[in-house]
Amino acid sequence: MKVPVVENVLKLNDELAAMNRRHFAQHGVFVLDLIGSPGCGKTALLEATLQRVKSDLRVGVLVGDLATTRDADRLARWSNQVVQINTGKGCHLDANQVRQGVARLDLAALDVLVIENVGNLICPVGFDLGQHLKVGMFSVPEGDDKPAKHPHLVHAASLVLLNKTDLLPHVPFNLEQFREDVRRLNADLPLLELSVARGDIDGWLDWLRSQVA
Amino acid sequence: MKVPVVENVLKLNDELAAMNRRHFAQHGVFVLDLIGSPGCGKTALLEATLQRVKSDLRVGVLVGDLATTRDADRLARWSNQVVQINTGKGCHLDANQVRQGVARLDLAALDVLVIENVGNLICPVGFDLGQHLKVGMFSVPEGDDKPAKHPHLVHAASLVLLNKTDLLPHVPFNLEQFREDVRRLNADLPLLELSVARGDIDGWLDWLRSQVA
Repeated sequence: MKVPVVENVLKLNDELAAMNRRHFAQHGVFVLDLIGSPGCGKTALLEATLQRVKSDLRVGVLVGDLATTRDADRLARWSNQVVQINTGKGCHLDANQVRQGVARLDLAALDVLVIENVGNLICPVGFDLGQHLKVGMFSVPEGDDKPAKHPHLVHAASLVLLNKTDLLPHVPFNLEQFREDVRRLNADLPLLELSVARGDIDGWLDWLRSQVA
Repeated sequence: MKVPVVENVLKLNDELAAMNRRHFAQHGVFVLDLIGSPGCGKTALLEATLQRVKSDLRVGVLVGDLATTRDADRLARWSNQVVQINTGKGCHLDANQVRQGVARLDLAALDVLVIENVGNLICPVGFDLGQHLKVGMFSVPEGDDKPAKHPHLVHAASLVLLNKTDLLPHVPFNLEQFREDVRRLNADLPLLELSVARGDIDGWLDWLRSQVA
């Protein structure tokens, strides 16, 4: 008798991610996986984005957190296509959670879906959710050394955002070092410097529109 | 024939953690597991701590990061009992890594060992390293909602630190909400509000000394 072998747990995730990807393609929805530390400003950026693009892009959000619906509540003021996924102790979203979350959305009513991953610079990097691109997000108060310390995210990302540039006068942060570390890890990676607090997100909105156009 | 069963991967970790704990007890070293987001100021706090207590406490540090020795390099200026553990893609330290790191230290020369965990509010919470206490660290720019979103850390911690209070004038942060969420999750948990940037860490130093006395 041949003993059955349990395959790599990632295999099921990859199959479900491929299913998600086909589902997104069928509806012509462009899907981002937004990855950053707790408090780097992911939800604030999406709040501002939903408001600023509402006349030309239909954006939905799946938002992952261990607990609370605070982020979804903030976002739901600006879009009726928002779903919160509570992961409990789970440190990242997986493709099955995204599949379940997407079932609560009307993909036909969307141009863009942003998956706001659980705040964590590490674990989300290794899980395919069926997204088209991963976006890595850092923020000034975290310090300029975070790309160098999280090379896998910088390798996996198709765009890096640096938020909270408004705090540059108030914290030690070597912007040249940050830029150089990003370039060294992933030479052609676009890097956008933003201040969501000041509404300075035009570069991001232009990038987002260019992806969908 | 009885089929062998592979037991929970946590079981080996717990056995190694118990071994670490006995080892620490033999040498009378008080051991903390410091857990916080990337950039909340863990290394900066320890740099300041090593300088401020050097006349009365002998402090060593095991510091975990995915990559680079930047944190250990910073700390090694103030203590010769510092070891960097690079975890690669690993999102937390485990008891075996701590065991290996401790082998590079002279425990007989220490009163306190701080294990600076990988920057991550989630995964480190579930792993016993053999420490006496876990300390959860947040910082003002991350936002006041982080304890509510990370209840497991607040439950597991014996002390919560809130760093970067110097940034309170520059970012939205409801200090009362933060305090209330911490209290609600863990009623008797001490909470210390610090500004490492301003050198305002007396409460932490007093707490640390009181644990060792």
